[in-house]
Amino acid sequence: MNEVMTDKIETMLGNKEYASVRDILSSMNEADIAALFLDVPPDSIPLLFRLLPKDLAADTFALMETDNQEMLIRGFSDSELKAVFDELYVDDAADIVEEMPANVVKRILKNTDPEMRAQINEILHYPEDSAGSLMTTDYISLRPEMTVSEAIKRIRRTISEAETAYICYVTDDNRRLLGSLSVKNLLLAEPDAVISDIMDKTIISVHTHTDREDVAKDMNKYDFAAMPVADDEGRLVGIVTFDDAIDVIQEETTEDIERMAAINPTEESYFRTSDLRHARNRILWLLILMVSAVITGGILKKYEDAYASNTILVSFIPMLMSTGGNCGSQSSTMIIRCMSLDEIRLRDFFKVVFTEGRIALILSAVLAAAVSLWIYLTVGDGQIALIISLSIVGIVIISQLIGCTLPMLAKRCSLDPAAMASPLITTIVDAASVLIYFFVASKILML
Amino acid sequence: MNEVMTDKIETMLGNKEYASVRDILSSMNEADIAALFLDVPPDSIPLLFRLLPKDLAADTFALMETDNQEMLIRGFSDSELKAVFDELYVDDAADIVEEMPANVVKRILKNTDPEMRAQINEILHYPEDSAGSLMTTDYISLRPEMTVSEAIKRIRRTISEAETAYICYVTDDNRRLLGSLSVKNLLLAEPDAVISDIMDKTIISVHTHTDREDVAKDMNKYDFAAMPVADDEGRLVGIVTFDDAIDVIQEETTEDIERMAAINPTEESYFRTSDLRHARNRILWLLILMVSAVITGGILKKYEDAYASNTILVSFIPMLMSTGGNCGSQSSTMIIRCMSLDEIRLRDFFKVVFTEGRIALILSAVLAAAVSLWIYLTVGDGQIALIISLSIVGIVIISQLIGCTLPMLAKRCSLDPAAMASPLITTIVDAASVLIYFFVASKILML
Repeated sequence: MNEVMTDKIETMLGNKEYASVRDILSSMNEADIAALFLDVPPDSIPLLFRLLPKDLAADTFALMETDNQEMLIRGFSDSELKAVFDELYVDDAADIVEEMPANVVKRILKNTDPEMRAQINEILHYPEDSAGSLMTTDYISLRPEMTVSEAIKRIRRTISEAETAYICYVTDDNRRLLGSLSVKNLLLAEPDAVISDIMDKTIISVHTHTDREDVAKDMNKYDFAAMPVADDEGRLVGIVTFDDAIDVIQEETTEDIERMAAINPTEESYFRTSDLRHARNRILWLLILMVSAVITGGILKKYEDAYASNTILVSFIPMLMSTGGNCGSQSSTMIIRCMSLDEIRLRDFFKVVFTEGRIALILSAVLAAAVSLWIYLTVGDGQIALIISLSIVGIVIISQLIGCTLPMLAKRCSLDPAAMASPLITTIVDAASVLIYFFVASKILML
Repeated sequence: MNEVMTDKIETMLGNKEYASVRDILSSMNEADIAALFLDVPPDSIPLLFRLLPKDLAADTFALMETDNQEMLIRGFSDSELKAVFDELYVDDAADIVEEMPANVVKRILKNTDPEMRAQINEILHYPEDSAGSLMTTDYISLRPEMTVSEAIKRIRRTISEAETAYICYVTDDNRRLLGSLSVKNLLLAEPDAVISDIMDKTIISVHTHTDREDVAKDMNKYDFAAMPVADDEGRLVGIVTFDDAIDVIQEETTEDIERMAAINPTEESYFRTSDLRHARNRILWLLILMVSAVITGGILKKYEDAYASNTILVSFIPMLMSTGGNCGSQSSTMIIRCMSLDEIRLRDFFKVVFTEGRIALILSAVLAAAVSLWIYLTVGDGQIALIISLSIVGIVIISQLIGCTLPMLAKRCSLDPAAMASPLITTIVDAASVLIYFFVASKILML
C-alpha cells in the first residue's frame, strides 16, 4: 500500500497536480507522511513539505530523519523556519536542535521567540539521559484556589489546541506540586468546584536528573500518561509524556540486547551507521573474547598427550563446549531480562542461585541420560559414555551457576548486567567445560 | 524505604491502629499498595484490603498477583465481590476472570451487573493475543451532530470519574468511526461548536483480530494514548490504551530475548514458574543443539590424523569456534532487533547482506592481523600463524553472513526470526569454523 501511495504521489507531482497532492497529504497522519518522505526522492521533499498545512507540517517535521530536517532548514527562509518551530513542542524542538550542526542551531535559535529559546536552552542543559532532557515544558498548571470555571478559562488562554495534555498539575506560589487532576475530571466537575477539593493529592514525581530509564519504568508502573519533573528546589519544571517513555523503553531494551550480544550500543539506526562505526562497535569485544578463548586453548594444550592417544576425545569437545555455552546463556539471559524488568532484585541472589541450581540438576540428568544412551548405541564404548555423561552433569551445573551469578555480581558492582551475557559467559564456560571434561576423562581413563 | 513502610504497617496492624493504617494507605498510589501486598504476610492482606477506600481498593485489586486475587475473592461476601468488580475497568475485570478457576469465575459473573458481564464475555471471546482481548469497552463515543455542550452533558451522564479517557470517538448511527477529538480540545472548544466541525477526521484504527504486537507498534508509531478497535463490520467496539500497549511491548520483547537465548517463552514471572516448567522451557533447544554439535564433532573426527600428528592444531579450536560464534551472534542479534523494530524489512535483504559483508571484511582484517602477530610472537611458527589468520578471515565472513541471512530467511518463511539467534547460529557456525580451519590447515600443511 505504501509503495502504491508513493508512486501515486510522485506521478501527481510530475503532473504538477499540487492541489490533489495537498488533499491526500492533509488526510494522512504525520507519522505516515514522515514514512512517505523516506521513500520519495530527496529532492521532492521540500516541495511536498511546503504543500502540507501548517500544523501538520510541524508535526511531520518533528518525526523526520535528521538529515532531511537539516536539508529543509537550510532551504527555509527565516519566516518559514520560524513558522515551523513556533508550532513544534518544546521537547521536539530541543531534540532537533541537539542534532544540528552549530551554524544551523544558531539560525534556529535566532528565529524562535525568546520564551521558546529559553525553554530549549533549559532542556538542552540537562544531562543527556536525564528526565530533564526528556521532558517538555508544555504543561497545564493550575492553582489550588481556582474554581473549575476559572481553571478552564486559564487553560483556554494559555494552551493551544495543538498541544497534547492529559493531566493538569496544581502548584503553589513557589511552583511546588500540590496535586494533579486529569483533564477529563476537570470536564466532569461542577463549574464552581474548587480545584484543591477535587484534585488527586497523591504526589508522584521524578527529579530533573533521574535517569530516563527509571522515569519510563515508573510511568509504566503507575500507568501514567505523563510524569511531572521537579528540580532541586522541588519546583515543577516539566513533564515527560508516555510516547517519549515508550521510545525510551525501546531504546534501552535495544541497548541491553546489543550489549548481550557483545556489541557496543549506539543510538543511530542500522542503515544510518557507517560500516566503520559498525565494525568499531563490535571489534573490541571480539578481540577480548578471542584472547580469552586462548585460555581454553591453553587448557586443551595441557592435555595433548591425552588426546594424542585417544583422538576420539577431541570429537566430543564441540558438543560439551556448546552445551555448556547454551546453558550459561539461557541462564544469564533469563536473569538479565528479569533484573531489567525488576522481577529479580539483588536481595534475591540466593533464591536465584538455588532455583538455577535445581533447574541445572533436572537439565543435567536429562542431557546426561540422552547423551550416554546415544554414545553407547553409536560408539558402543561404555567408558566413553560414562566420561561424557559425568562431564555433562558437571558442565551444566557449573555453566548455569556462572550464568546466573555473573550478571547479579555485575549489578552489585554497578556494572551493566547485560555486558555479562552470552558471549562472555560462553567464553568462561568454554574454559570450565574443557577443564571438567579432561579432569573426568583423565580420572576414568587413568591418564 | 519500602521495607521500612512494610515494617511500620505491620507494627500498626499488630497494635490494631487501623485508622492510621487506613490514612497511610489512602495517601498511596495503587501500584505502591500492590507492591506492599507482595511484602506483607499473606494473612494480613484481607484486613489491609478492607481498610482501603472503595475506588482505591478496586484499582489495587487489578494490580495484585493472581494468587492473592483468588484468595481475596474466596474470602469476599457476594456484596464485597460486586463492589470491587463494579469499580474495575472492563479490560482489567476480563483479565482477572481469565486467570481464575471455573468455580470462581462463576461466582464473579453471578455478582457483576448484566452489562459488565456481557462486556467481559465479549472481550474473553477474542483470540488471546488479539486487539479484541486487549481492549477495554469503556470509551467515550459522541455523535457528529452534537454541540460541544451536548457532548459534555452526555459524557457527564455516561462516564464515571474513575475511568481513564483521553480521546472521544465520533461515530455514526451504525457505530462506524467518523473521527476523534481529544478531551482537552473538547474543553477548549466553544460550547456551541458542532463536533463534526472540530473533530480530527483522520481515521486510524485496528481490527479486533489484529495481533497485539502490531497494535502496540502502531500506537508507538502514531504516539496514540488510545487506539480504536473496530470489528468485521467496521463498528467501533473498544479501545486499547497506552498503558496496555507498553505492557505488550515489554512482554513481546521478553519473549524475543528468551527465544534468542533458546528458551521457550512463558508468560509467568521467573519466581512464579516451577523448576520443572523452567527446565521444560530450556531442555528442547539444549537437546537439539547438543545433537547438532555432534556434526562439528564428526568433522573433527574426520581430521583426527591431522591433529594426532599436529596436536597444536587442537588448541586453536576453541578460539576459532568462539570467534565465529561471537561474530555470528553479533550479526544475528543486530538484524533480529532491527527487524522487530521495523528498521530492517525483508526488501532490505541484499542491502543487509552487503553491509554485513563489508563489516565482516573490516573485522576479519583486524582480527587476522592481531592473531597472526600474536601467534608469531608466542608460538614463533609462521606457518601456524598463516593457517590461523586465513581461517579467521574465512570464519568471520561466513559467520556474519550466516548470522544476518538466517533471521531474514526465517521471517520470509513466517517463522520467528528470534529463534534463529545466538545458540542456533553458534552451532551452525561452529561446524563451519572447524571445516574452514581444517581445510586451510590441510592445504597449507599438505596433510
